[in-house]
Amino acid sequence: MNTTNPVVIDAVPGQSYADISREFEAPAAAVFRAHADPELFRVWIGPRSLETRITNWDFRTGGGYRFEQTDADGNVYAFRGVFHTIRENELLIQTFEYEGMPDLVSLDVMRFEDLPGGRSRLVDHSVFPSVEVLEGMMAEGMEYGMREGYEKLDEILANRA
Amino acid sequence: MNTTNPVVIDAVPGQSYADISREFEAPAAAVFRAHADPELFRVWIGPRSLETRITNWDFRTGGGYRFEQTDADGNVYAFRGVFHTIRENELLIQTFEYEGMPDLVSLDVMRFEDLPGGRSRLVDHSVFPSVEVLEGMMAEGMEYGMREGYEKLDEILANRA
Repeated sequence: MNTTNPVVIDAVPGQSYADISREFEAPAAAVFRAHADPELFRVWIGPRSLETRITNWDFRTGGGYRFEQTDADGNVYAFRGVFHTIRENELLIQTFEYEGMPDLVSLDVMRFEDLPGGRSRLVDHSVFPSVEVLEGMMAEGMEYGMREGYEKLDEILANRA
Repeated sequence: MNTTNPVVIDAVPGQSYADISREFEAPAAAVFRAHADPELFRVWIGPRSLETRITNWDFRTGGGYRFEQTDADGNVYAFRGVFHTIRENELLIQTFEYEGMPDLVSLDVMRFEDLPGGRSRLVDHSVFPSVEVLEGMMAEGMEYGMREGYEKLDEILANRA
């Protein structure tokens, strides 16, 4: 692979939601599986500088998740949420909270869409409680963490059986 | 009681969230309990014209709920969601979906605040996936249903032991 596919963040200024899309050189089912399987998810989620440990994983409609990410200095960042809807290979609706900013919860509606040629697109409609929270997440390097994470996901998809 | 307290909907035009507040002649703990106990919740949620049946109730952080409302003609309207955070007598963060409009999920951050004189205020920061969905819910009579529901809740609070 020459270059990686870009993370496209479509945010209207002054609105509290963003559409984040990313294409993959693999079918939607493979990308979905990397969101469903904690052993795969743990490897790719977040930037390369952080080590991820899953502390709760109940991947079903009505279930939930929690994971901790540790940096080289031993600082721990924890994230958790609940799965509102899971439709296999197609749709994932979940809440998301960084425990360092308690009660600032966002809602992600993630659609997994097949494209021609065995490719796919993931579109995440990410809804924040206010414009300020979205802008804060952008400023905190949300896009950077997603880009590196998806590059790791590319590697998982390239190596799959 | 002479008149009931108003439902105040504070929605900025063009934004996809609204702050819905309502005061009660009872402490926050009593209002919270009416959200926690399915036998109480069933009685007050929604307009008077609908009969409510709880089909799932797991009131804890990470739990979920589902209920059905039936009108005089036998039409059934179902609603479901997950509880992201429950902090007793204080905070309730939950998702909400009307199953008749699948995958259009909103997120409610409800704060229960005590006021002087044994009164309280409930403030619901309700976040919708888009401006259009919020406007659609408003047009569908969201405010009417909430007003009648909270009037029934007033009656429960007035009759409590």
